[in-house]
Amino acid sequence: MTKRTSLKLGDLVTRFGGELIGKGDVRIRQVATLESARGTDISFLAQSRYLPQLNQTKAGAVILSPETRNATSLPRIITTNPYVYFAKVSALLNPSAVVKPGRHKSAVVDRTARIAKSAHIAACVVVGRGVQIADHASVGPGCFIGDGVTIGEATRLYANVTVYHECRIGARTIVHSGAVIGSDGFGIASDGGVWRKIPQIGRALIGNDVEIGANTTIDRGALDDTIIEDGVKLDNQIQIAHNVRIGAHTAIAACVGIAGSAKIGRNCALGGAAMIYGHITIADNVQISAGTLIMKSLDQPGTYTGVYPFSSHQRWLKNAAHLRQLDELVQRVRKLEGMHGKADKDPS
Amino acid sequence: MTKRTSLKLGDLVTRFGGELIGKGDVRIRQVATLESARGTDISFLAQSRYLPQLNQTKAGAVILSPETRNATSLPRIITTNPYVYFAKVSALLNPSAVVKPGRHKSAVVDRTARIAKSAHIAACVVVGRGVQIADHASVGPGCFIGDGVTIGEATRLYANVTVYHECRIGARTIVHSGAVIGSDGFGIASDGGVWRKIPQIGRALIGNDVEIGANTTIDRGALDDTIIEDGVKLDNQIQIAHNVRIGAHTAIAACVGIAGSAKIGRNCALGGAAMIYGHITIADNVQISAGTLIMKSLDQPGTYTGVYPFSSHQRWLKNAAHLRQLDELVQRVRKLEGMHGKADKDPS
Amino acid sequence: MTKRTSLKLGDLVTRFGGELIGKGDVRIRQVATLESARGTDISFLAQSRYLPQLNQTKAGAVILSPETRNATSLPRIITTNPYVYFAKVSALLNPSAVVKPGRHKSAVVDRTARIAKSAHIAACVVVGRGVQIADHASVGPGCFIGDGVTIGEATRLYANVTVYHECRIGARTIVHSGAVIGSDGFGIASDGGVWRKIPQIGRALIGNDVEIGANTTIDRGALDDTIIEDGVKLDNQIQIAHNVRIGAHTAIAACVGIAGSAKIGRNCALGGAAMIYGHITIADNVQISAGTLIMKSLDQPGTYTGVYPFSSHQRWLKNAAHLRQLDELVQRVRKLEGMHGKADKDPS
Repeated sequence: MTKRTSLKLGDLVTRFGGELIGKGDVRIRQVATLESARGTDISFLAQSRYLPQLNQTKAGAVILSPETRNATSLPRIITTNPYVYFAKVSALLNPSAVVKPGRHKSAVVDRTARIAKSAHIAACVVVGRGVQIADHASVGPGCFIGDGVTIGEATRLYANVTVYHECRIGARTIVHSGAVIGSDGFGIASDGGVWRKIPQIGRALIGNDVEIGANTTIDRGALDDTIIEDGVKLDNQIQIAHNVRIGAHTAIAACVGIAGSAKIGRNCALGGAAMIYGHITIADNVQISAGTLIMKSLDQPGTYTGVYPFSSHQRWLKNAAHLRQLDELVQRVRKLEGMHGKADKDPS
Repeated sequence: MTKRTSLKLGDLVTRFGGELIGKGDVRIRQVATLESARGTDISFLAQSRYLPQLNQTKAGAVILSPETRNATSLPRIITTNPYVYFAKVSALLNPSAVVKPGRHKSAVVDRTARIAKSAHIAACVVVGRGVQIADHASVGPGCFIGDGVTIGEATRLYANVTVYHECRIGARTIVHSGAVIGSDGFGIASDGGVWRKIPQIGRALIGNDVEIGANTTIDRGALDDTIIEDGVKLDNQIQIAHNVRIGAHTAIAACVGIAGSAKIGRNCALGGAAMIYGHITIADNVQISAGTLIMKSLDQPGTYTGVYPFSSHQRWLKNAAHLRQLDELVQRVRKLEGMHGKADKDPS
Repeated sequence: MTKRTSLKLGDLVTRFGGELIGKGDVRIRQVATLESARGTDISFLAQSRYLPQLNQTKAGAVILSPETRNATSLPRIITTNPYVYFAKVSALLNPSAVVKPGRHKSAVVDRTARIAKSAHIAACVVVGRGVQIADHASVGPGCFIGDGVTIGEATRLYANVTVYHECRIGARTIVHSGAVIGSDGFGIASDGGVWRKIPQIGRALIGNDVEIGANTTIDRGALDDTIIEDGVKLDNQIQIAHNVRIGAHTAIAACVGIAGSAKIGRNCALGGAAMIYGHITIADNVQISAGTLIMKSLDQPGTYTGVYPFSSHQRWLKNAAHLRQLDELVQRVRKLEGMHGKADKDPS
């Protein structure tokens, strides 16, 4: 949290476009929520339900959509996508930490590894044989990089990430702490009541501009590779099994599990704790609601849901008991209908 | 597991209260379950369904509630909350490991960090710039403590914990291995089919007397902070997203996920694998059953449940098929009721 | 990925049995899927639905079941369990990395630890007091092995595994990165609105031939021990609470949670994200479907399921609303039945 120089509102418009309303020389130092903003902060209105907070904000300026352009008298920038605009302003005001070239003396780097001079290898990192780490990449404290791994330009691994042998990570990818990439898939064959391990000889291949959350695990392929395409965003504690493929620009919220060999399309969005069966295929542009278990392939875009609606425990007890008897209930209705056989054919 | 000196039963009563029945000079060395206790162990009866085990226990003494005071002839302590009493006795017999002051020579500590002389920094720890670690705190092997972090008095981090920059951890807090505190929240804005990252500039603030389980992840805030209040107890593999606030003395079982900006009240209890939507508010004293997905705010205390009751797979197949057709079933019942329109108004 | 010498098909049959059809001198270098196999690869047919891929494979040889023995003209091995045969061939062609005896100079090993000369201790490992590590065991970079731990022969810990004090791991067991063994169970007693910690003084005991997936957590026992019997296979991100016992040769898929003191039988299979309540007992040979929550003991073998069937979001909204009113629906049907009291007794 170093001191930042301020930027004028007008400079933002010059750089990122949008329509300026009000004084362009307002100085902005940071981004903030409407609620906590101070006079040198810029905020934004994401949804109209936050309008009351717009009225009370102490922000120096705000970013609004055309629909809400007159909802305040504050200096403001009007743009069709305030959230994206805000993201750009925030990235400008909060640049990523500069990568310090060089390796810490406590790092243990195999002499056959090829590490760009501009890359950073932090303390207590262990780097295996034949590893390649590209320019401006950064490997955080305590990471382990297995034999033969390649890490692309400007990719950042936070502390305590593990990358197994032979895996590949593209450029500008971010991997958060505790993530494990390339661990063995769950490949076992039942041999007379005893499990026999199937060697996992594929790799995990991670594309460019991917983000991988804390403690997320991505298994290597059993035979072929596990593939995470470019621009995929993975939240924390996601489990991706062997031979899964995730299409470009798909976003997956925390606690999701994807079983072996499932193929997820491009530009999909999976809500938190969604679970995907193995060996199924999900089309592009599919949304899956939080907590939903997908048991079969989806070949059409759209939103899919399957979660038990919660209620008070007492009410749940009653309904759940009936749910267990749903088949019997259907039989009872069928019987009642049978008694009305004639009436049924003779609608009133 | 060092050798312990024994305590007399009477000494326990002197220290913790309760009514002593039987010989006060029975010597106690350890706590144990009724089933596995030996003559120098003290055990307790948690629920009346364990009464048969009380009859057969070889424990030297037991802790009982007033209701079961005569359920055994063993030396015993009578108290209104045997489990809490047992907890106190166990803590006395099994004190936390003494923190050895000093830092291991393999630790990499930035020279600007201020570490109390009584604190312990284990082997292969990496400590960033400006970190403050208070008296009697203990940082386990392989931990990474990011720039500007503060860690309170007598707080203990087990091995391989990661704390990102600027986060704060209070006093007497315990963090188990693999936990990640302060990783980036999942903040992304859709910009024409491509995800743009929102810098996560808030912090994660952890209170006093908190416990955080193994491989639990707590994201830093997007703009404002993520807050875990005093006395919160978190089990393993919990995911807490950015800008969540968890009220004091709330206990959360393993595998729970809490989405962004959710506010959980004080003294709540969340069962394992419960999932909480983002941007909702849960009142104080709410209990959520294991496996339940909460999709909207709860403003009343009580117990809430929503899980699909399991059955044999064959039975589930039938019921689930009907569940998919529940709307049609309701229409059919409505139609039957229509046929009985008159009768309906003329109850027998 | 070192160069391998090739094996003749006939040599495989000599070694592993099965019936050879076609030329026995075909040379095999690697295993592969039917789709990606090349002329020096051997593949196998797991299920008849992959028959089209068998027709198009470029594999040099395949492993088939008696039912499909004539489904190709390729050189082939006929065996009753092609998948197990394939596993054996793959293990032969892809042997585990040879364990290099010795410890890296950056490892921090307590002088009281007894480590076999043939064992490998990687860089940045920390080993506590009284630890015993047996022959040919391998401890990966960044692992922490707590005081008093024992690790059996030929067991392999990948990078960044944490094993708490006093735990035991058997022989030939594999533990993947980020796994935590022996962390404190979630033992807390409510003491007037404040949680009091119960010291967790049991251990976690892991058997022989176990596999533990990445970021899986296994808590130590509260008083008695947590036990994972021989041959158990655990996928990634599984949570096993204190005092759980998992019977021999049970396989558990990713993201499963097992609450405290649950006893799982032998030769069970738990699908991904299944959740098991505490203090229940599950018989041998039980299969639990993915995503199913088991709330009570199961004393019969069989397959159990309980997941909400997904649908389009629109359809789900309708059905879920009715589900909340299921009790009312049942009352309505009961009323209709009452109106048919006579007819009911007088079936047409």
